[in-house]
Amino acid sequence: MKLTVAEKIIRTHLVHGNLHRGDAISLKIDQTLTQDSTGTMAYLQFESMGIPRVRTKKSVAYIDHNMLQAGPENADDHLYIQNIAKKHGIYFSKPGNGICHQVHLERFGVPGETLLGSDSHTPTAGGIGMLAMGAGGLDVAVAMAGGEYHITMPQIVKVELRGKLPLGSSSKDIILEVLRRCSVKGGVNKIFEYCGDGLKYLSVPERATITNMGAELGATTSIFPSDEITFEFLKAQGRETDFIEIKGDEGARYDEELIISLDELKPLAACPHSPDNIVPVNELSKIKVSQVAIGSCTNSSYMDLMKVAELLKGKTIKEDVSLVISPGSRQVLNMLSENGSLSSLISAGARILECACGPCIGMGQAPNTDGVSLRTFNRNFKGRCGTTSADVYLVSPEVAAVSALTGYITSPEKLMEDVHVSMPNSFTINDNLIIPPSENGDDIQVVRGPNIKPVPKTHILGNTLKGTSLIKVEDNITTDHIMPSNAKLLPFRSNIPYLSNYCLTPCDEEFPQRVLENGGGFIIGGSNYGQGSSREHAALAPLYLGIKGVIAKSFARIHEQNLINNGILPLCFENEEDYDHIDMMDEIVIDNLLNQIDCPVITARNITKNRDFKLLLHVSPRQKSMLLSGGLLNLIKNSK
Amino acid sequence: MKLTVAEKIIRTHLVHGNLHRGDAISLKIDQTLTQDSTGTMAYLQFESMGIPRVRTKKSVAYIDHNMLQAGPENADDHLYIQNIAKKHGIYFSKPGNGICHQVHLERFGVPGETLLGSDSHTPTAGGIGMLAMGAGGLDVAVAMAGGEYHITMPQIVKVELRGKLPLGSSSKDIILEVLRRCSVKGGVNKIFEYCGDGLKYLSVPERATITNMGAELGATTSIFPSDEITFEFLKAQGRETDFIEIKGDEGARYDEELIISLDELKPLAACPHSPDNIVPVNELSKIKVSQVAIGSCTNSSYMDLMKVAELLKGKTIKEDVSLVISPGSRQVLNMLSENGSLSSLISAGARILECACGPCIGMGQAPNTDGVSLRTFNRNFKGRCGTTSADVYLVSPEVAAVSALTGYITSPEKLMEDVHVSMPNSFTINDNLIIPPSENGDDIQVVRGPNIKPVPKTHILGNTLKGTSLIKVEDNITTDHIMPSNAKLLPFRSNIPYLSNYCLTPCDEEFPQRVLENGGGFIIGGSNYGQGSSREHAALAPLYLGIKGVIAKSFARIHEQNLINNGILPLCFENEEDYDHIDMMDEIVIDNLLNQIDCPVITARNITKNRDFKLLLHVSPRQKSMLLSGGLLNLIKNSK
Repeated sequence: MKLTVAEKIIRTHLVHGNLHRGDAISLKIDQTLTQDSTGTMAYLQFESMGIPRVRTKKSVAYIDHNMLQAGPENADDHLYIQNIAKKHGIYFSKPGNGICHQVHLERFGVPGETLLGSDSHTPTAGGIGMLAMGAGGLDVAVAMAGGEYHITMPQIVKVELRGKLPLGSSSKDIILEVLRRCSVKGGVNKIFEYCGDGLKYLSVPERATITNMGAELGATTSIFPSDEITFEFLKAQGRETDFIEIKGDEGARYDEELIISLDELKPLAACPHSPDNIVPVNELSKIKVSQVAIGSCTNSSYMDLMKVAELLKGKTIKEDVSLVISPGSRQVLNMLSENGSLSSLISAGARILECACGPCIGMGQAPNTDGVSLRTFNRNFKGRCGTTSADVYLVSPEVAAVSALTGYITSPEKLMEDVHVSMPNSFTINDNLIIPPSENGDDIQVVRGPNIKPVPKTHILGNTLKGTSLIKVEDNITTDHIMPSNAKLLPFRSNIPYLSNYCLTPCDEEFPQRVLENGGGFIIGGSNYGQGSSREHAALAPLYLGIKGVIAKSFARIHEQNLINNGILPLCFENEEDYDHIDMMDEIVIDNLLNQIDCPVITARNITKNRDFKLLLHVSPRQKSMLLSGGLLNLIKNSK
Repeated sequence: MKLTVAEKIIRTHLVHGNLHRGDAISLKIDQTLTQDSTGTMAYLQFESMGIPRVRTKKSVAYIDHNMLQAGPENADDHLYIQNIAKKHGIYFSKPGNGICHQVHLERFGVPGETLLGSDSHTPTAGGIGMLAMGAGGLDVAVAMAGGEYHITMPQIVKVELRGKLPLGSSSKDIILEVLRRCSVKGGVNKIFEYCGDGLKYLSVPERATITNMGAELGATTSIFPSDEITFEFLKAQGRETDFIEIKGDEGARYDEELIISLDELKPLAACPHSPDNIVPVNELSKIKVSQVAIGSCTNSSYMDLMKVAELLKGKTIKEDVSLVISPGSRQVLNMLSENGSLSSLISAGARILECACGPCIGMGQAPNTDGVSLRTFNRNFKGRCGTTSADVYLVSPEVAAVSALTGYITSPEKLMEDVHVSMPNSFTINDNLIIPPSENGDDIQVVRGPNIKPVPKTHILGNTLKGTSLIKVEDNITTDHIMPSNAKLLPFRSNIPYLSNYCLTPCDEEFPQRVLENGGGFIIGGSNYGQGSSREHAALAPLYLGIKGVIAKSFARIHEQNLINNGILPLCFENEEDYDHIDMMDEIVIDNLLNQIDCPVITARNITKNRDFKLLLHVSPRQKSMLLSGGLLNLIKNSK
């Protein structure tokens, strides 16, 4: 049988199911990763399972989100995660060591293996031929405990890259082009698999930029083959023994096909306020820039920053531009420092931030009011940068660097003629910020700061589900809307009671209070509800407030699973027009639910409007059990 | 006449008065500096004076406080300050260029001149023989407008440094020793002038560490002579033409004398929670450290960080320690980067923060709950670090670096044997982050963010001052208590209405509400009320709430002036025991105030206790006019 790269890895990891598209399957997980904003909850959930040591091949806990540390909450979380890691067999990457995806690519990822991470950009590791998926913290906790990961067998999209990128264009433009063609909902239940003769010109970090930002398609993941270039990268990282070759078979069957002629690809930008709002950079040349931010898990590799350093060398940024650069990892920072490129950046006027997510998650560097910020990141949702009125454009590092010099959004073609950087034959390897687990964790004391609150309790599904429509939101609501994530709230990711006061407040400030006053109820959503980050908090906060179900036109994959994991019903309108017939504060009831849950279509009633409407529940039998048990943790406990 | 260094500079700058101690004098100000947390208010006040160009020799606006930028407020303030600077003839040091005091020392300070800065650590420039004083923003605004600076002619304390520091001790230990002997109130209305044969071993940055932290004595300023070492420093900065020699005359008269035998000085630490709580480091060797923070305007020079780099080279910090380093300036960072020392720091596991105040002002890096943080900073007031329960110890960079390696507070003597660093013959000079003012500011548009609110209105003194005692606080209340300054509040320094909700809340959470409910009233303080930072906000927030007077045992110099500048009466108990006879919510009245203000003693009445008590108002005739006019801005407007 002729197989694609993704199929090959899925087949060797299948626990249940087969390669038939749309079927429920489960996969053995080789590696997991967490970061600190989702990690504390994930480890609290892991602890509640009572497993002494992780059962994966390798699990790594990273600190990269909450690194500003305005109060004790973050240092407390970091300490908790460090203790838990040491105790339970998990590697701990200290704050300062870098962004989880960049470091994982450098030091841990293995071609042909599976990786589950409590961060939506986990597919970054697809750049070295890993099947890497983002998931809610609870799914990652289950994987650490040895459980499989359950998904719908995705369709596989062939993305054929033909030719070679012209000077000034970069791999960021490839993923922006895919987003332009497919949109932020175009990837749901799909894997994007890259191939073609263009691959031979793309280094691993360039591939990782593409798989990273593939998350914005709503895709299950994105993946590249593991080839000679993968080998060279792993060898340069001193990890050639981790290499295996995985290529798609000639004649393998794909469900869809995209062809991108790289030679014709011009520098692109994602305009406010969506990563799929794509325009050629040269159409934006009149836009004045107040801030340029380079970094994030999308574009913070050694190659990215070397290009920026070469472009800025001996020059000075425009006086009214603030340029901030966050290197992706300590390895990157150290190499730039060693070879003098850091001096080029500093001398040109760049502010060097820590090796962390930083401005990408609104953790600092909010632009000025009505400001224009040009960023090499992966998301530009309104307000995510910390400034609601700011316009954020997503571009390549080349465009960002040149624009910092001119003060306007500028295409970099001309200046790139003088830029000559290449992948190093060997990277500087220093793992002294990665703390290995202890041999025997019994004696490790776990310190819990006062901000670390228990995971909220779920509820077992009853036969009648009745409640009020407490909010009605539009299409493409992101997890940033549902559970805002900024410098003020991120430190409280371990404290759901506190966070829930801000649930959905970007859409409606009174929502949390209204849910509490009405004793819970329903959220009414549009299509692609819950896109964006993997944060489970977008389910945990509604759960804590008392939300029983979300009725939407469609859901983003990870968020839908997070709802189910926490016993909240994700219901889709059978007819999308029914969305128009529900108003806020309508009373909705679903009777006879325990029977209806087994039917293809569920009938609900809008009591206020005296009107029935049909709902679909797209769940596997296992997911159904979860909902009936009141979530995944209960299901696991019941099955013990 | 034989004169001291300070007397020589004062004499050449006297506008009114003479060198007689205790007399009111006024000084011509050559240079001013502001930083961003006090700067916006200062420039709003400057604008209200209607002067088109500053009348100083040089004025510089720095950005170093609010650099995390969790919301748009900071970028807006930075932009406002950048515009104002360009328009009105002020040099603008962009974010990323460094901490005001370090950069001013490097690029602008001139021996023999006067410097007034809206930051309490402005005396740092005393390290190059400048008479440099901290003041409220309004005083700095007046100086920019060409007005003199009014002070009480201070007493001059001779600090004779004899011999040479032993290995492992540093200039930080000298100022800690002075603090041990004199306490945080020991320097009020005094200038500490350093001399002795020990000077020849102290470089300018080492001297600046001492003058910087001299602020913790409550001193008017601290100063070193301008000598060969000063010349070498200025020459290495390409500024030898700024040099003039200023030495104290043989036989000059000092008011007090301290002698410090450097040979006997061991490494010291300031223990929680006061900079004068001094203990030898070797008595603290059992204290486990969770965080080490190196930097701040006290200890972030090239020499400081080179020593740290040499100590850490090839080693790894303890796994449960978080080490953060904030270089003092872009010059320092760039030189460390160029000579490879930055790589040593990074490789050892240090997190490199921006060139900014950072953790010293609680702007990030709050330690864990109950954590121990070892810092090379100048203040360790409870909670200032962002974590109320943390213990902060202040030490030299050497002690900090070695302790990061051991995980315990550790004396560095042994490891220092391998450390050989010296002052460079020339520093890397790159002023491209310093934006000069425009030739003609008329066409510069000033952009004001929505968080920039007007300066609160003052009130003209009436003949009867009646109000309630709304809070009663103990000795040594700092401006951090009066107007808390942390990562959450610092961004709102341009918004007094918002800030005032937090006024004195570390002492009493209900204070702001109580003042509003009672329509204003009195604050009852202990001795040294208002020590610490120069922030005028500690007067502006009470003013906004409606506070009419502060009755205390004694006041810190800058805060007392800030109260007067804003028309709030700073009254001292004649008999300190009267403090014990006032309770919170007592009604207090001062009758016939417009006559009494001219008497040596003012009689007040505690209506509730039916008891009279005596108050002193230590004010110059000019200060009296200010109080009668309702503050300095009114006085200036009236005199036009």
